[in-house]
Amino acid sequence: MDLSVPQAVFSVRRPAAFLLEGTLLNLSEYLSRVRQQAPVIHAISNYVTANDVANVLLACGASPIMADDPEEAVYITRLSAALALNLGTLSRRRVSAMLAAGEESGRLGRPILLDPVGAGASPMRTDTARMLLHRLPVTALRCNASELRALLSGTHTHRGVDADRQQAGSLSEQIVFVKGAARQLGCLVAVTGETDLVSDGDICFVIRNGRPEMSRVTGTGCQLSALCAAFLAADPDRSVYALAAAVCAMGLAGEIAWGHMTPHDGNAAYRSRIIDAVYHLDGETLNKGARYELG
Amino acid sequence: MDLSVPQAVFSVRRPAAFLLEGTLLNLSEYLSRVRQQAPVIHAISNYVTANDVANVLLACGASPIMADDPEEAVYITRLSAALALNLGTLSRRRVSAMLAAGEESGRLGRPILLDPVGAGASPMRTDTARMLLHRLPVTALRCNASELRALLSGTHTHRGVDADRQQAGSLSEQIVFVKGAARQLGCLVAVTGETDLVSDGDICFVIRNGRPEMSRVTGTGCQLSALCAAFLAADPDRSVYALAAAVCAMGLAGEIAWGHMTPHDGNAAYRSRIIDAVYHLDGETLNKGARYELG
Amino acid sequence: MDLSVPQAVFSVRRPAAFLLEGTLLNLSEYLSRVRQQAPVIHAISNYVTANDVANVLLACGASPIMADDPEEAVYITRLSAALALNLGTLSRRRVSAMLAAGEESGRLGRPILLDPVGAGASPMRTDTARMLLHRLPVTALRCNASELRALLSGTHTHRGVDADRQQAGSLSEQIVFVKGAARQLGCLVAVTGETDLVSDGDICFVIRNGRPEMSRVTGTGCQLSALCAAFLAADPDRSVYALAAAVCAMGLAGEIAWGHMTPHDGNAAYRSRIIDAVYHLDGETLNKGARYELG
Repeated sequence: MDLSVPQAVFSVRRPAAFLLEGTLLNLSEYLSRVRQQAPVIHAISNYVTANDVANVLLACGASPIMADDPEEAVYITRLSAALALNLGTLSRRRVSAMLAAGEESGRLGRPILLDPVGAGASPMRTDTARMLLHRLPVTALRCNASELRALLSGTHTHRGVDADRQQAGSLSEQIVFVKGAARQLGCLVAVTGETDLVSDGDICFVIRNGRPEMSRVTGTGCQLSALCAAFLAADPDRSVYALAAAVCAMGLAGEIAWGHMTPHDGNAAYRSRIIDAVYHLDGETLNKGARYELG
Repeated sequence: MDLSVPQAVFSVRRPAAFLLEGTLLNLSEYLSRVRQQAPVIHAISNYVTANDVANVLLACGASPIMADDPEEAVYITRLSAALALNLGTLSRRRVSAMLAAGEESGRLGRPILLDPVGAGASPMRTDTARMLLHRLPVTALRCNASELRALLSGTHTHRGVDADRQQAGSLSEQIVFVKGAARQLGCLVAVTGETDLVSDGDICFVIRNGRPEMSRVTGTGCQLSALCAAFLAADPDRSVYALAAAVCAMGLAGEIAWGHMTPHDGNAAYRSRIIDAVYHLDGETLNKGARYELG
Repeated sequence: MDLSVPQAVFSVRRPAAFLLEGTLLNLSEYLSRVRQQAPVIHAISNYVTANDVANVLLACGASPIMADDPEEAVYITRLSAALALNLGTLSRRRVSAMLAAGEESGRLGRPILLDPVGAGASPMRTDTARMLLHRLPVTALRCNASELRALLSGTHTHRGVDADRQQAGSLSEQIVFVKGAARQLGCLVAVTGETDLVSDGDICFVIRNGRPEMSRVTGTGCQLSALCAAFLAADPDRSVYALAAAVCAMGLAGEIAWGHMTPHDGNAAYRSRIIDAVYHLDGETLNKGARYELG
């Protein structure tokens, strides 16, 4: 994992006030690379959202392969540019496949994205997420704040995936928390919520794209995780920026899709419109629409 | 299970002719409670329709958690206000999870909804449904008429999920059958078809919402079952009314969605429009559009 | 499998130039039979695309049953007019179910459609596909060219599902290849790609329906395979023609659906529109829109 800072950014590593919306990075580059390279992404995903994950990967220009059996996981990993692990609808069989695929991915030096869905909701989820973080060279963790807290705390919180309504502290406290988590876990961390934070332990992007209604569509988090894997696959040498670009892209797609909603559209129509917005997203729109700063 | 009759209803427990369409219950109350309480529903569902089940739960205001491994099922159940069991794409592993989750749910006194998908189509389905009914304090069974007959008959019928085209007798015979089933099984029964019947063994709602085209969308039955679980979670003390409200809501959503269809729309568009109609359904529309009587 | 040639075709078994677009077969007959017979299709499918497979079966007038447990597979097969096996998201348990269901289907003389998703991507996929072809009386294989090559070659190619970009030779070479494959495997073969080829080893349909954008929607291949099973179930005595009719129908639905796309629609909207186009497809449209010749 190369965390060196691109020149364009290094020159502005000063207070966040200097980092105005959409001016920091040329995000279009990251999207273009995904579309040009069409990376194959091995996704070991839950069955609730697997179809959407596959379609959002196709929408961004990547190519999904889904295989969750220990017997074939390593072969599929070898064909793939990155690995996306998602703990939803977990089973022992799938955990074995994740471990085998992750070890092979590590040997090959390819990015691994972990989405610890429901960490904190059961010991199986929490323990599996920790075990994978411990045994695999995870490149990036993409989760919500309660899942991250469950992974970092010594005890199981036994709270549900929906239980993250308590106050999470001020933005600057959150930034300190996420930077610390990245350092402690030794990987990139992307925590999404009302505001999204992406950190490598040193810098932290504060991203304000997205719509609250995205949480009414099942699997938008899973889709984002897959998108992160695709962006990491296309830009493994600038991984924290690629990760931030993916988070901006998904949030912006949610905003654009919301703008396309008609009066009778609900969460099912929104589900399709978000993927369609990823499909049509171009670099210029991404550069103009991304709202982020460095915290 | 508290089957006491709310005051508003008790006063009109007279011949069905007095119970005019939409005047019996204030259905909007039941919908409002789901939206206000946002109950977490633990759904152990088949993988064919799991995404739609999750999205319809989000559409009605509930929050889905899906976990089907015996190792974690009880933990997820503890976080949840109700449990929805669906026998589609059944496996031994999932049966173990259903049993563990159901026993925990029973200990906690929380509603359990059982959808015996395909009962009668294989001994595994029929036997599993009966075993769950025998061992768990099931609150409500939601199925079609052929599945119910398979559960009640001494033998396997070996008929398919589509085999329910024979005449099922007059409406009054159906009502007697469903009331008897509820008494025999010791739980609420919601049988859906051309006309939907919801009974606690004593009263029986005859519900005439819905569109025949809903059967051309896979999983509308699974979605209804999840919706029933959400309504039961929000109103456990008025469960037969909550169940009837859920059945009216789903059928009415099907009617509203049908009204939004454009010329090229087919069953895939209808699939989304139904969930979207649940998303936008408000209490006044539900009260006005529900068509039911007591049989 | 009856491969006798219908009279209408036999009279024109002359050079392909005589077989003008849409004039060879009355394709509407094949579609009508599916809609009239409403065959029950037992689909053992992957969880990524299972929902779309079920909905496209409903769209064409068939009725899906999905059951993938070895314990119940044979019972479900007995209820069904055809069996569709799909190797996506493969597992040992599902392989056992496929074998049991396939043997029962063979005993009952009912069509079996095999979609060897990802053959060549892992030994498990390749070996399972070969084993099923060896042990079951497979009626038709529906795949892409790289999967077919993997099945026929002596070695594993270890290429991914997306790896089929190399030149595949001239059309006449492809025809020779597919005819030879059908003879070697002893079953019908439908290979889809830029041009689709359907052969029984003797004749070979060259089908030019479809849109390249269909490959940006996950599962269009799985859907086509299910459609093929439905057409085979309705016309088992004219199986190669039924198979060609299904391939034309799916491709044409993709073209019609593309014509319904609006500016913001992407692959998610296209996904629904394709199924909707199958839902609305009528015989006259199919006869007029099918573009094929005999090669």
